[in-house]
Amino acid sequence: MLGRYIFERGEEKEMEFKGYPEYSSRQPLILKYCLKRPVETYPDDIGIVYRNDAGEYFRFTWRQWHERTCQQAHALKALGVKPGGPFEPGDRVGTMALNHHRHIENIWASVLTGAVSHPINMRLSMDHMAYTITHAEDKVIFFDDSILPLVEALYDRIKDTVKTFVYMSDKPGLPKTKVQPLYEFEELIKQYPKTYDWPDFSEDTYAVLYYTTGTTGLPKGIMFTHRQVMLHVLYGFASMAFRVRRPDDPEPPNENIPMMNIPLFHIHAWGQPFSLVTAASKIVFPGRFSPEAFCQMVQEDKVTSAGMVPTMLAMLLEYPDIDKYDLSSLIAIGTGGGALPLGLKQKAEKKFPLMRAGSGYGMTETLAGVLGSTIRRNMVDWPQEKIDEIMVKTGVAGMGIQVRVVDENGKDVPHDNQAIGEIILRGHWIMERYFKEPERSATAWRDGWFHTGDAAKVDTDGYIIIADRITDVIRSASEMVPTVLLENLTCNADFVLEAAYVGVPDEKWGEIPMALVKRVPGTKQTEEDIMKHLQTEGVDKGKITKWMLPSYVLFTDDIPRTSVGKFDKIAIRKRINEFVSKAKQVRKI
Amino acid sequence: MLGRYIFERGEEKEMEFKGYPEYSSRQPLILKYCLKRPVETYPDDIGIVYRNDAGEYFRFTWRQWHERTCQQAHALKALGVKPGGPFEPGDRVGTMALNHHRHIENIWASVLTGAVSHPINMRLSMDHMAYTITHAEDKVIFFDDSILPLVEALYDRIKDTVKTFVYMSDKPGLPKTKVQPLYEFEELIKQYPKTYDWPDFSEDTYAVLYYTTGTTGLPKGIMFTHRQVMLHVLYGFASMAFRVRRPDDPEPPNENIPMMNIPLFHIHAWGQPFSLVTAASKIVFPGRFSPEAFCQMVQEDKVTSAGMVPTMLAMLLEYPDIDKYDLSSLIAIGTGGGALPLGLKQKAEKKFPLMRAGSGYGMTETLAGVLGSTIRRNMVDWPQEKIDEIMVKTGVAGMGIQVRVVDENGKDVPHDNQAIGEIILRGHWIMERYFKEPERSATAWRDGWFHTGDAAKVDTDGYIIIADRITDVIRSASEMVPTVLLENLTCNADFVLEAAYVGVPDEKWGEIPMALVKRVPGTKQTEEDIMKHLQTEGVDKGKITKWMLPSYVLFTDDIPRTSVGKFDKIAIRKRINEFVSKAKQVRKI
Repeated sequence: MLGRYIFERGEEKEMEFKGYPEYSSRQPLILKYCLKRPVETYPDDIGIVYRNDAGEYFRFTWRQWHERTCQQAHALKALGVKPGGPFEPGDRVGTMALNHHRHIENIWASVLTGAVSHPINMRLSMDHMAYTITHAEDKVIFFDDSILPLVEALYDRIKDTVKTFVYMSDKPGLPKTKVQPLYEFEELIKQYPKTYDWPDFSEDTYAVLYYTTGTTGLPKGIMFTHRQVMLHVLYGFASMAFRVRRPDDPEPPNENIPMMNIPLFHIHAWGQPFSLVTAASKIVFPGRFSPEAFCQMVQEDKVTSAGMVPTMLAMLLEYPDIDKYDLSSLIAIGTGGGALPLGLKQKAEKKFPLMRAGSGYGMTETLAGVLGSTIRRNMVDWPQEKIDEIMVKTGVAGMGIQVRVVDENGKDVPHDNQAIGEIILRGHWIMERYFKEPERSATAWRDGWFHTGDAAKVDTDGYIIIADRITDVIRSASEMVPTVLLENLTCNADFVLEAAYVGVPDEKWGEIPMALVKRVPGTKQTEEDIMKHLQTEGVDKGKITKWMLPSYVLFTDDIPRTSVGKFDKIAIRKRINEFVSKAKQVRKI
Repeated sequence: MLGRYIFERGEEKEMEFKGYPEYSSRQPLILKYCLKRPVETYPDDIGIVYRNDAGEYFRFTWRQWHERTCQQAHALKALGVKPGGPFEPGDRVGTMALNHHRHIENIWASVLTGAVSHPINMRLSMDHMAYTITHAEDKVIFFDDSILPLVEALYDRIKDTVKTFVYMSDKPGLPKTKVQPLYEFEELIKQYPKTYDWPDFSEDTYAVLYYTTGTTGLPKGIMFTHRQVMLHVLYGFASMAFRVRRPDDPEPPNENIPMMNIPLFHIHAWGQPFSLVTAASKIVFPGRFSPEAFCQMVQEDKVTSAGMVPTMLAMLLEYPDIDKYDLSSLIAIGTGGGALPLGLKQKAEKKFPLMRAGSGYGMTETLAGVLGSTIRRNMVDWPQEKIDEIMVKTGVAGMGIQVRVVDENGKDVPHDNQAIGEIILRGHWIMERYFKEPERSATAWRDGWFHTGDAAKVDTDGYIIIADRITDVIRSASEMVPTVLLENLTCNADFVLEAAYVGVPDEKWGEIPMALVKRVPGTKQTEEDIMKHLQTEGVDKGKITKWMLPSYVLFTDDIPRTSVGKFDKIAIRKRINEFVSKAKQVRKI
């Protein structure tokens, strides 16, 4: 793979010394060079902690993690998994698994050998899952014992594509199943050597494949190269170095100890499987998220940071036993996958005085986060209230990514905190194209920019505030209703846990807003209290104008969500008549 | 330039959507993408501070810095400076200048337009300077008013190569001189627009050219590409994110405010001209180093960090007026260009209780620092004494660089703090080759590793301790005498400022060690006190063995140095008879 570099150099006429550009100016940005800290600097530190549903703990040093990854690499080779290059992706290695040591070992073993890791999105429908596996042409699938029924149900539709299955379990032995040929994970790898001579190859070799959730049409596959993943990791560390600390912010710890709640198959778990190993940060895997496991593991392993969707954070704050645990080590919570309501942020920080919560934005097409709420040096002395407002904004793009918010003609919207446009992006880790989807790729990439389909406005400081999917925006009298602002405002009320706004079709106005609200358990406030709150905190303070107020309010504990925990506005719209019939009309216009 | 990427992609058979890889997976690592923080995020912050010899201050916001850089870019274009690419370097733009705003603007204007910046090493002899200018084929030279006599002296030897000269001065007007054609800097740039549409080009385009000091033979030129410089910057930020902080270490500031003492023409000023602008860290330029200017500027601009050679640090500590200034903002001093004696480090930290001093290692061939003294997470609770010992070691290589210390057969020396071998390197910002020097390139790059010619040993924790140039090592009875260890030990004595050890030819032993020692002014200790100190602090504590003790000690304030301030062991050896005749023989063996 490196030959082409040397070949190019050979074309240079005065070049008599060919040298070793592959170890210098052209050393490839490939993930094997990320192993330095875990494997060379901190081999004896605990690298991976996993607690299964039964409460059993598994702990591995970085040396052990690497040895097991090497063994898996040999196993992949023995199973016939072939590496790829810049023009032809390597064989795809699918996983259907929760967050645990075997899963992250498998991802690394795949990418380090030049194959493509495909963590299968398990929140899709059966049809869509079968589609992604055959579309990806997964050659092997590694799956959890708990996933066996699902694999059996899919088997007839994927058996012609998938040549081998590997069964991952904390208990020995194989089940009786039609899924064949089937290997038991630990039996498979234990026969292989604990070292592997990781190969060099082009940095444009594909590393990972992820599928979108596919709320519209079939899921779309996206591959990223080693170079893209590496640069995302490096720029992420650079951002860490520039994090601005306010006087009462907690000291950053020498070792970040993250809990990885976001599934490994979801937007690369926000890039963490690569960045955390590269940093040699002890990774705490809860298998699957639950408030009880979360509290238990934070206390046990002194977890310092966690990534969550806002819903997880809301679940955690509702957990009745939360005060029984020592969660004082937790100083940072990052949220994504939905706007962070200001009220939720404030409730979380009230509960954990040392903790700081911030929000971010990314999608499968952007590898991980691309926008984040970060404060600037000049904001150090701002009052907490103003900082809170910044931290729930979607944020700004760091180095490596360029972002604009543009109107329908491709012109930047004014930075007036009002005008809504579409977020468009460029940069090292913005997807190049959808896998085997030239038309859909060309729809997204236009005029040199990737079009996200997400609507946003920009404040006077240049911070982006996400509004909604362009297609989900409420349009009333041809004005865009700022849904997220309304949702945040509503959540600020003490008695409100969550709120979702949708447009109800209306002959006169086009659409009029309806609020679906989940109250804090045990509270008794009424729909009128919502309106009063919106009036005093929103209209009176100039944050919203009167025409934005909802016409309907529905109290419900059952706000439809997508498989990744976001409010599913499409599902809400489908049941709009049902919701309107149950809601209280609070306003006539 | 980007065409080749698209062309390569075009070869992929199933590729119907070409897309915009140049804005995604193949977005080049070029320095224009480093302008985001200074130009977009912090345009109104002060970026550059310069104080000239007369004590006048010049201050520029990042916006102003960028506008002036754009104007210079237009000027370069008007002067006929042409960009290059990966196979052919762009025109070279030479500078003969101290550290000030015009100089760093010029470096950036050159590299952002695809030309090559060549800060001319002004510590070379006249012959060598003339050689580097003609060897580099500098098309334009920008020089300081104070450098005019030098340029005039060189003129006849460089006028056929250099087409244009630009005169940089804090005062208006041009001098009468034979140096022609000559433009006045501010007059030249002020006619041009303050914006520039920075071009995209291949990341393998050459950015900078530096020449070695050339202690042996003619100076060697080394070019680095945009990719190399960018990756050095990025990995440097990553290292910052991983810096381990001990309980009593000062808090890292939100804005690092560095004083740039290292000349811009010396090993890229350790990479700082690129990393500091990228970080939008206010850069404080002293023109040239003096203890008085240093103290004045630290106090005035709240400087937080400074890079120095150990000699500068020693000069600073000797400065009688030092206590008249408030230097409390200074919390980090990095040294390089010579080992940091433990005694000097401790004296500095005693003077400035908040300050932490560390050492590093790099050479022109490695773009900037490649090894640094950093402590690991497990050392956080070590006693200060042990930390001090770590921090004066040459250190370890961070991510992006691989290092080994090997014997004459290319085998790694044991990590026993004893065996001495040669440092060899690989990595993104190790030079690819010497410019137009295939033979010397092939001597340095062998078996896939760059051979530094520096001797070192490795301790049991894997930390490298530089011994000397391989050619400068003292060999006594075929054992290597650890010169740097002896120098550090000697400097630990309260009354010693600096010490250099060299080998005196001896029929019986091959070489026997001699110490050249500079005492603290006003102290009266004798040569015997040196020996007593080495006995009690060295031999008795098992740090050195008796055979390493010097046979001669010479007190002198005139230890020969190279142009970059290191002890010049070659010059010392040339005058060895003179030194021996003045020295006291303290031991007979």
